[in-house]
Amino acid sequence: MIVNFGSVALDTTRTPFKTAEDVLGGSGTFFGLAASFFHETGLIGVVGDDFPNEYMQLLEDRLDLAGLVVEKGKTFRFDSSFGYDLGTRTTIRTDLNVFGRWEPTVPDEYKDAPYLYLGNIDPEQQLGVLDQMDEPELTVADTIELWINTKKDRLIEVISRVNGVVLNVEEVRQLCQVPNIIKGARTILDWGADFVVVKKGEHGSILFTPETIFPTCGYPLEEIVDPTGAGDAFAGGFMGHLARKGKMTDKAMREAIVYGNVMGSFAVERFSVDRFLELTMEDIEGRYRKYKEMVAF
Amino acid sequence: MIVNFGSVALDTTRTPFKTAEDVLGGSGTFFGLAASFFHETGLIGVVGDDFPNEYMQLLEDRLDLAGLVVEKGKTFRFDSSFGYDLGTRTTIRTDLNVFGRWEPTVPDEYKDAPYLYLGNIDPEQQLGVLDQMDEPELTVADTIELWINTKKDRLIEVISRVNGVVLNVEEVRQLCQVPNIIKGARTILDWGADFVVVKKGEHGSILFTPETIFPTCGYPLEEIVDPTGAGDAFAGGFMGHLARKGKMTDKAMREAIVYGNVMGSFAVERFSVDRFLELTMEDIEGRYRKYKEMVAF
Repeated sequence: MIVNFGSVALDTTRTPFKTAEDVLGGSGTFFGLAASFFHETGLIGVVGDDFPNEYMQLLEDRLDLAGLVVEKGKTFRFDSSFGYDLGTRTTIRTDLNVFGRWEPTVPDEYKDAPYLYLGNIDPEQQLGVLDQMDEPELTVADTIELWINTKKDRLIEVISRVNGVVLNVEEVRQLCQVPNIIKGARTILDWGADFVVVKKGEHGSILFTPETIFPTCGYPLEEIVDPTGAGDAFAGGFMGHLARKGKMTDKAMREAIVYGNVMGSFAVERFSVDRFLELTMEDIEGRYRKYKEMVAF
Repeated sequence: MIVNFGSVALDTTRTPFKTAEDVLGGSGTFFGLAASFFHETGLIGVVGDDFPNEYMQLLEDRLDLAGLVVEKGKTFRFDSSFGYDLGTRTTIRTDLNVFGRWEPTVPDEYKDAPYLYLGNIDPEQQLGVLDQMDEPELTVADTIELWINTKKDRLIEVISRVNGVVLNVEEVRQLCQVPNIIKGARTILDWGADFVVVKKGEHGSILFTPETIFPTCGYPLEEIVDPTGAGDAFAGGFMGHLARKGKMTDKAMREAIVYGNVMGSFAVERFSVDRFLELTMEDIEGRYRKYKEMVAF
């Protein structure tokens, strides 16, 4: 099982073309839905008692929810907007609500899971989950600007204890205080990570290990509807493929990066998680093959 | 022979780390030096009588200069600056000088050349050169924001008469008035081009034809010294490889795009054209092979 610790949120997403209010979002949601195509995935998270039944049913259909807690209060809410090129997100409001004061508990049946994803949550909470697990074979962590600004030491502690981190370009630059991402990735490897994946949005992603660099381009899309969740869906495809392969060879890692790109490209084609609700494993394998043909030379 | 119509300039380039004044630059210079590694290249351009002998000697060592004219007056000067991430150029001053009032003449011995590159010069001058040529097998054109703003109709006429165009992302968006580059590329193909190459700087480049999309990532670099000329060096590697192959198959086009990325990556490693002065064909083939291994999965 992949244990997925992340947020379940109600997102308000404003684009010049449409605004979607209080729709299903959160890093745990996007990661989980993407990963679940590849491998059984369990969710550790918390929602408020206002969380819609419809969304709960949707998650239950796809994920193991032994680690999802419903607490009295309001669900985490995230309100953001995009400009015409859908390139840059502006955060309007982040209300952690029940997530802010929560101390996560790992269900007993999750503790010996071989795969652990620590979504972009407070590093203290990430460490809390890590401490409760036995020894996962593969742990991957994400973060956001907020924790780089406010809890950098704890975040570096997380990085020193996981196998890999999945960050976007801006996060690498900010965390490592260096504009060049190769240098940034090297700093993160020095902190103890075995690998670093730098996500570049539409421009693809790069895998760094101490031995290798694997740069990839993004899957070209003509219509981008809502970039929300692309990074988490990337991580879900990446870990999902590694879990189903059951090994972390250089070849499996490279394939996993491309599956990550593929899942990220699906995520942005509809608002919220809508694209994943109609997606099939055939669609995923088809786009992977198409990508592979496209980039061949 | 590749006939290369482009500017020869004296650049002043300001980065936070160093300022280089009145150093050799220009689209014809960067294209020509890059292309000359692959195939004989002749230059059509004009300089003033202040053009340093040292630079003239450098060009003469590598290019056929039958089309290079020295006129009374000052050489084209371009003054620009970059910020800390070396990502965005700010133009401080452009003095066309002798280039502005010049009507290019194609030497008789260039007229039946099979390959023609029209650098980012005034579309009227591009059309002037095109009119004097017999029928080149392959003509590729570039442009800049200035001509999109001031001579769009003439530019579209150029596009309708050439085989391919090589533009950066911002130019495609501005020219086609659409944020999505796939849609933009389709518009340009509709105007009559057989192919469009969209350059994305450090993020690589994408080849569009009516049948295919070939996205590539950039060659990852740890040190970027001066991005000036990267796009022209890209075009030089791209056309240079096509010229030496002597055919325009899908495979040759894809390889040419990667050689373009490789030549662009060399260009930015030193100020001005300095990297090309110490470069060998072995370095180029070595980086091509390294790139190919790097992106394999």
